[in-house]
Amino acid sequence: MKAVFIGSGNVATHLATALKEKGIVIGQIYSRTLSNAETLGRKLECPYTSDMHDIITDADIYFYALKDSAFKHFIRNFDMPNAIHVHTAGSIPISEFDGFATKYGVFYPLQTFSKGKAVDFSEIPICIEACNSEIQMQLLDLAKMLSSKTYFINSEQRKKLHIAAVFACNFTNYMYDAASQIMEDSGIPFEIIQPLIAETADKIKTMNPYTAQTGPAVRYDEKIIKKHLFMLIKKPELRKIYKLISKNIHKRHSENNRY
Amino acid sequence: MKAVFIGSGNVATHLATALKEKGIVIGQIYSRTLSNAETLGRKLECPYTSDMHDIITDADIYFYALKDSAFKHFIRNFDMPNAIHVHTAGSIPISEFDGFATKYGVFYPLQTFSKGKAVDFSEIPICIEACNSEIQMQLLDLAKMLSSKTYFINSEQRKKLHIAAVFACNFTNYMYDAASQIMEDSGIPFEIIQPLIAETADKIKTMNPYTAQTGPAVRYDEKIIKKHLFMLIKKPELRKIYKLISKNIHKRHSENNRY
Repeated sequence: MKAVFIGSGNVATHLATALKEKGIVIGQIYSRTLSNAETLGRKLECPYTSDMHDIITDADIYFYALKDSAFKHFIRNFDMPNAIHVHTAGSIPISEFDGFATKYGVFYPLQTFSKGKAVDFSEIPICIEACNSEIQMQLLDLAKMLSSKTYFINSEQRKKLHIAAVFACNFTNYMYDAASQIMEDSGIPFEIIQPLIAETADKIKTMNPYTAQTGPAVRYDEKIIKKHLFMLIKKPELRKIYKLISKNIHKRHSENNRY
Repeated sequence: MKAVFIGSGNVATHLATALKEKGIVIGQIYSRTLSNAETLGRKLECPYTSDMHDIITDADIYFYALKDSAFKHFIRNFDMPNAIHVHTAGSIPISEFDGFATKYGVFYPLQTFSKGKAVDFSEIPICIEACNSEIQMQLLDLAKMLSSKTYFINSEQRKKLHIAAVFACNFTNYMYDAASQIMEDSGIPFEIIQPLIAETADKIKTMNPYTAQTGPAVRYDEKIIKKHLFMLIKKPELRKIYKLISKNIHKRHSENNRY
């Protein structure tokens, strides 16, 4: 099986690397920026290009791992009817392929990838959707080579999953960043809080987050909340967030008011 | 060394258990609620009471692991001048002991404790403050028996640390809860998002949270943000949070605007 990657960002890098390790031939890397294509091409020891007219046409599967707007541009200009075309994005519905490909689907690994940090692909949930059941089974076989966690997720669900991921990953990381800002100001090393962060994430493996909720907001300890809001007076952005989230936690945990 | 615990909640349960494992005698558990005192007393095979006049007076150290308001009540009514008195709270300044004890300090384990879930105390940062250097060294020795991570943190810093912990633990857990609400509505099992949560927490062991920030808000992908806000229309609380945090992430990552 020969795969081409359109895109050379974090998702492309980690996914192409994992596929190559499982024996899939990476036939080519395309990136608009030659140096990016080259970096990944050299890493994977495969051809690369920054000219879309040079993209090879004999691959079995094309992975589109690029920004939503760029995706449309490519899929509309390609014509390889015998190959499977898949995108790797949480936010693009499968219907975007309509009229531009005959065999297509979605291959969405739900994880946060950073270039410098290796991840264990066998633990990454891969969400699959396809134009028909035959392609669905082919994508499932491919996903199962990489991971023990595979799911059929339709476009409507995937959109929701993407929002959920923004909360659980991006916004969570912002909470870490907020903590680090507050600590930095007082000369407290960030490492002190790392075990707390690890345990908070670990808890929800065995408890649902609703039950795991602790802190002044859930017991509505107004005295502490007021003290904290007063202390955040010089950080109006964080103060606003503190106030809003505390209010929401309290509301969600008030009796008969589980929204 | 004999210790008494005033309070039988999560902190008392985990801390007293860890101390007992290291050979400290737990002389007594006090709780206002007899059944709570009994539960922990039986677990630790030690005496317990719900009558504050029955609290033994010959212990070496008294741990106050209770709500801020209750703490004041106890420390004002106690008179064991030879013992060390410590509270375990993030939010109570050491000055609350002034005039009510001669040997005192703070013994604050920075972790989120749940009754049903064991934690490895050796990895928990213990933050110490004391009335003088002699007591400080005694508390440090005790802390080092339990954990490899000990810190001297003054009251001003501890207050800030407590706010940071609210962001990094309580608010983070609320982000998990928000994700689970969104997924539940679409029939997506919560387990799909657990590896993402684990990796998000793992990342900041080697990267600072500012650098680790990803998602539509940091690259200010307005199209996706607008789509997500539209999809959250039936969840106004989460929509408000999405909007505010996205704005803040964007602001923090805009050039020359690192607040």
